[in-house]
Amino acid sequence: MKIAIAQLNYHIGDFEGNLQKMLNTVAKAKLENVDIVVFGELSTTGYPPRDFLEFRDFIRLAEESIAQLTKASKDIGIIVGSPTINPVSEGKDLYNSAYFLVDQKVLHVQHKTLLPTYDVFDEYRYFEPAHVHKTVLFKGKRIALTICEDLWNVGNENPLYTICPMDNMMADHPDFMINVSASPFDYNHAADRLEVLRANVDRYHIPLFYSNICGAQTEIIFDGGSVVFSPDGTVFDELPYFIEAFRCYELDEVIKGGYHREQAKDKMTLIHDAILLGLKDYFGKLGLKKAIIGLSGGIDSAVTAVMATRALGKENVRVVLMPSSYSSSHSVEDAKALAENLGIRYDIIPIAAPYETFNNLLSDVMEGKPFDVTEENIQARSRGLILMAIANKHGYILLNTTNKSEMAVGYGTLYGDLAGGLSVIADLYKTEVYRLAELINKDGEVIPKNSITKPPSAELRPGQKDSDSLPEYDVLDPILHMYIEEHLGPDEIIKKGFDKKLVHRILKLVNQSEFKRHQTAPVIRVSPKAFGVGRRVPIVGKYLS
Amino acid sequence: MKIAIAQLNYHIGDFEGNLQKMLNTVAKAKLENVDIVVFGELSTTGYPPRDFLEFRDFIRLAEESIAQLTKASKDIGIIVGSPTINPVSEGKDLYNSAYFLVDQKVLHVQHKTLLPTYDVFDEYRYFEPAHVHKTVLFKGKRIALTICEDLWNVGNENPLYTICPMDNMMADHPDFMINVSASPFDYNHAADRLEVLRANVDRYHIPLFYSNICGAQTEIIFDGGSVVFSPDGTVFDELPYFIEAFRCYELDEVIKGGYHREQAKDKMTLIHDAILLGLKDYFGKLGLKKAIIGLSGGIDSAVTAVMATRALGKENVRVVLMPSSYSSSHSVEDAKALAENLGIRYDIIPIAAPYETFNNLLSDVMEGKPFDVTEENIQARSRGLILMAIANKHGYILLNTTNKSEMAVGYGTLYGDLAGGLSVIADLYKTEVYRLAELINKDGEVIPKNSITKPPSAELRPGQKDSDSLPEYDVLDPILHMYIEEHLGPDEIIKKGFDKKLVHRILKLVNQSEFKRHQTAPVIRVSPKAFGVGRRVPIVGKYLS
Repeated sequence: MKIAIAQLNYHIGDFEGNLQKMLNTVAKAKLENVDIVVFGELSTTGYPPRDFLEFRDFIRLAEESIAQLTKASKDIGIIVGSPTINPVSEGKDLYNSAYFLVDQKVLHVQHKTLLPTYDVFDEYRYFEPAHVHKTVLFKGKRIALTICEDLWNVGNENPLYTICPMDNMMADHPDFMINVSASPFDYNHAADRLEVLRANVDRYHIPLFYSNICGAQTEIIFDGGSVVFSPDGTVFDELPYFIEAFRCYELDEVIKGGYHREQAKDKMTLIHDAILLGLKDYFGKLGLKKAIIGLSGGIDSAVTAVMATRALGKENVRVVLMPSSYSSSHSVEDAKALAENLGIRYDIIPIAAPYETFNNLLSDVMEGKPFDVTEENIQARSRGLILMAIANKHGYILLNTTNKSEMAVGYGTLYGDLAGGLSVIADLYKTEVYRLAELINKDGEVIPKNSITKPPSAELRPGQKDSDSLPEYDVLDPILHMYIEEHLGPDEIIKKGFDKKLVHRILKLVNQSEFKRHQTAPVIRVSPKAFGVGRRVPIVGKYLS
Repeated sequence: MKIAIAQLNYHIGDFEGNLQKMLNTVAKAKLENVDIVVFGELSTTGYPPRDFLEFRDFIRLAEESIAQLTKASKDIGIIVGSPTINPVSEGKDLYNSAYFLVDQKVLHVQHKTLLPTYDVFDEYRYFEPAHVHKTVLFKGKRIALTICEDLWNVGNENPLYTICPMDNMMADHPDFMINVSASPFDYNHAADRLEVLRANVDRYHIPLFYSNICGAQTEIIFDGGSVVFSPDGTVFDELPYFIEAFRCYELDEVIKGGYHREQAKDKMTLIHDAILLGLKDYFGKLGLKKAIIGLSGGIDSAVTAVMATRALGKENVRVVLMPSSYSSSHSVEDAKALAENLGIRYDIIPIAAPYETFNNLLSDVMEGKPFDVTEENIQARSRGLILMAIANKHGYILLNTTNKSEMAVGYGTLYGDLAGGLSVIADLYKTEVYRLAELINKDGEVIPKNSITKPPSAELRPGQKDSDSLPEYDVLDPILHMYIEEHLGPDEIIKKGFDKKLVHRILKLVNQSEFKRHQTAPVIRVSPKAFGVGRRVPIVGKYLS
C-alpha cells in the first residue's frame, strides 16, 4: 500500500484555490499509483476559519469542495479535513472532521474529539467533540484516522482531556495511524510535537502518517514538518519545514523501518524561516507585493528591513529615513549603509518641517507647558503619517518594527512607531532580536555593526537612551519572559533574585499598556505566548497595575 | 427568612476594592437582619477576568478575598462567586464557583456547569464544568444554588447543552433557587433574560432570586436588572438597570407574591444608558477623568460629544474643530452651536498648515500622482495627531466617534478618524445613530437640527458625500445587519430583495476591512453582535473578499 502525505499551504476561505490545489495533488498521486493521499485539518476551508464557521454559506462552500473531491476519488483514497454539520440539534452546530473518500463515495468520516481551547485555539467555540471512535478498513488494512489534538492525550496523561481516542480505536487492532493536523509553529513546538507523536507510536507499536499543513494565516505560522514513524518509534521521514511538500511511502518499507531522517531544529534558524513565511503569506494571500519601512538606524528596523527584503525581494521593499533634530548623525549613516547593503530604495525625509508646523499650530493650546512625551509623540506620529502617505499613494504596506520588549512595556507611540499592517519581530524580545541580527550577519555584514553595538535609543529628545527609562534588556527580558511566557506572579519573580521595586514597576507597565497592544498590528507568532489572539487580557483591569 | 440581593459594580483584578465593597454590604445586611446576602458571579475577581485566570498569583488573591469574606460571615450567609482550583489534575485547572459562607465556615461550594463559549464568552478556555449538582440546607430551607448560564438550559431545550443542572437539583425538592450571574447587556438581552428566568420558575414552581452584576468592563456592559420571581412566575421585583442596588426580601412575601414590578425596556433608552455606563466606567476604572473629541459638525461626533458630556460632566469634556479647505462653513457653525449647547470648551484649529507642510514635504516622493485617498488620509491623520497631542499634553483621552456602518465597510482612516481610546457609538448603525440623536433632542434641541438633517459627508474632498461611495444608509444598514447580526450569506440577502452587485460589493468591503477593525479602539457593546471580542474573523481570509 502506497500512502502520500500532501503538506500544503491553504488560504482561509479560498475554497476554489484550496480545492484546485488538492485536485492537482490527487492527479499527481494517481500518476504515482498512490492508494491514499492525506491532506490537512480543515483543508477545504483553511485553518483557523474562526467565526466564518458561523455562516451556513461558508459551510455550504466547504461541502461543495468535499463533493468535488469525492468525484475525484475514483481509484484512490483521499483523506481531507472539513467541517461537517452536526445532524442532531443537541450540541454545537459543527464537527471538525476528517473525510475518507474512495471511489466517488464517502467511505468514512471521523470527527475530532479533543478540541483545543487555549492560547490561539478556540475550537470549542465552534465544534462538538466526537463521541464515537471507529477505525476504517481499506484494501485489507485497518486504519485509525484521527485529527490533530486527538493524538495529544497519550494514554490519557494530558490533564486537559479525559478521553484518548486512539486507546479506544486500538480495540479494532488497526494496522497504522493517520493523523491530519493544523499544528502551528513556535520555537519549541517542532520538538514537542515529535515527542508526542513518538509517544503514540511507542504506545501502539504501529506506523504513523502525520500530515500537517504549512503556511501563515495572518499571525499564526504553520510549519509543516509532517512526519512518518516506523512502528519501532523511529522517524522514517520528516517533511521539510515551512514549505509545501508531497511525498509517497510504501507501507511495507515504513514497517520495515531502518531510516532516521530528522531535521535540525535550531531555534534562531526556525524563527528566521517562520518570519519569512509569515511575511510572504501575509502579502501573497492578501494579493499585495510591496512593503515600506521606517528605518531609524537602530537594530529593530534593520532586522525588519532584512527580513522583508528576504521575503519579498529587494525590488518590493523601500525604506524611509526620517531624521529629526534629535537624531544622531550616525543613525542616518547606519540606515543608509543597510539600505545599500540590501540594494533597496531609500528616501530621506526630515521631519523638522511638520514638527515645527504642529508646534506652531498648537502653541496656544499647549499653554506653554514644557517639552514632554507629547512632543516625542508628535515626532513619532509625523513619521507614521509620512510612511502611511507614501504607502497609500504607491500601494505599499507599512511594516511595523516594534520588538516584544517594547510591546510589553508600552515603549512606543500609538499611530506613530506602533503603526503598520503587520508586526514582523514583535514576538522577539530585544535580546532575541540581537541573536537574529547575528544570524543574519553570520556570512558577512548585512546589518551595519554600529546598529548592533550602539546603545538602543528612540532619539526623540536630546541624548535619550532606552536605559534612561527602562532597565537594561538583559534584566528586563527575563522578567518579561517569566511574567508573559511562564505566568509567574511578582513574588515568584522576586524570589528568583530580581529587585522588588523593579519587578513591580515592570509588571505595572505591562498591564497598563494593554490598551496600546489592543490597537496594534497582528504579530507574527514565533513563541509559545505571543501578543495577540493567544493572549487575552482586560484593558480595564487593575491586576498589578 | 430574609434574602438580600447585592447588585454591585466590580472592577476586574481590583481585589481590595471588590472585597471592601462586599464587606460594606455584608455589614449593611447584618443591620437589616438579613439571613443570606447574594453577590454576583466571580465577584472577587470581576468578570470577565480573561487570561488573568492563568496566573496562580491572581487565583491566590481571589482565595484571600474568600478567606476574608468567610471571616465576615458570622451570623449571616454570604453567597459569592469566585474561581476555585480544580483539585484533581484531570480537566481544566479551575472551576467557576459560587461559595456559600456561613458562620465563618464554607457551608457549600457549587461549581458552574454550563460554560458559555461563544460571542464574547470564553469560559471553556479556563474552566472545568461541574459534574455534581447538590442543593444546600440552611436554616431549614433547601436551596438550589446555580451560576448564570446554568439556568439557560431550561428542560434541556438549549441545543448547546446536554445537562440541566436544575433538573438534577430538583430531586432534592429545593424550597427556592438562587442564581449568581454576570449577564451582559445587549438591546434584546434584558427581555430575553427575563423570559428564560420565568421559564425556570414556570418549570419548577419555586421562587428565584437572581443576582446580576452591573458595570462596564472595557467594552462589555453589565446591566444589572437582578430579579426576584414569585413561584407563580410573576416578577416580584426587578432591580434597576445599570446602577448598583441593594434590596432585601422576606421569603414568605415572595412566595405569597401578588406584586409585579417590571421595568420598561425601551430599546433606545437602554442603549443610551448603556453607553453612559460604558463611558463612566472606562474612565472611572482607569482613574481617568477627561475626554477630548474631534467635532466635525456631523451627527456622529455630535452624539458622541453629548454622551461624553452626560457621562463625564461638561467640565471634563473638550472638543476641537479642525476645518480643512474642504469643510463647509456650516460644519464649523453646527459644531460650535453644539459645544455651546453643551457648555463645553471648544478650540478651532484649522488643518491647512500641516496639510500644506506634508504636501510640500512629500511632493517629490508623490511623483506628481493626482489627489486620491492619500490626501484624504493626510487630513484625517493630521486631525488625529492634533487631538492626540492635546490629549497627551493635558491628560485627556481621545474618544472615537465612528459608527457601526462605517466600521463595517471600512469607511474611515486608520490613525486618523479611527484613532481613540474608546469607541462610543461604533455598535450603532448610522440609522440607529439618528434614532439616538432624536432621543437626545426629545426634550429640546441639544444637537443642532442641521447636523441631523444634512447629508452625511467626510468633507475630505470638494463636495464629497457618503452616498458617493456608499449606498444610502437605509439600504446599507439592513444589508450589514443581515450579514453581521444574522450571519446570512450573499444569496440569502439577495433573495430578500437586494441588488446582487450591491450585496457582493458591500460584503466584500466588510471582509476587506478586517485589518482596520483589528487596530481600532474597543467598542461599547450594545448589540448582540458587536465588533471586537465577540466577533473573531481572520484578517487574511478570502471569504467574500
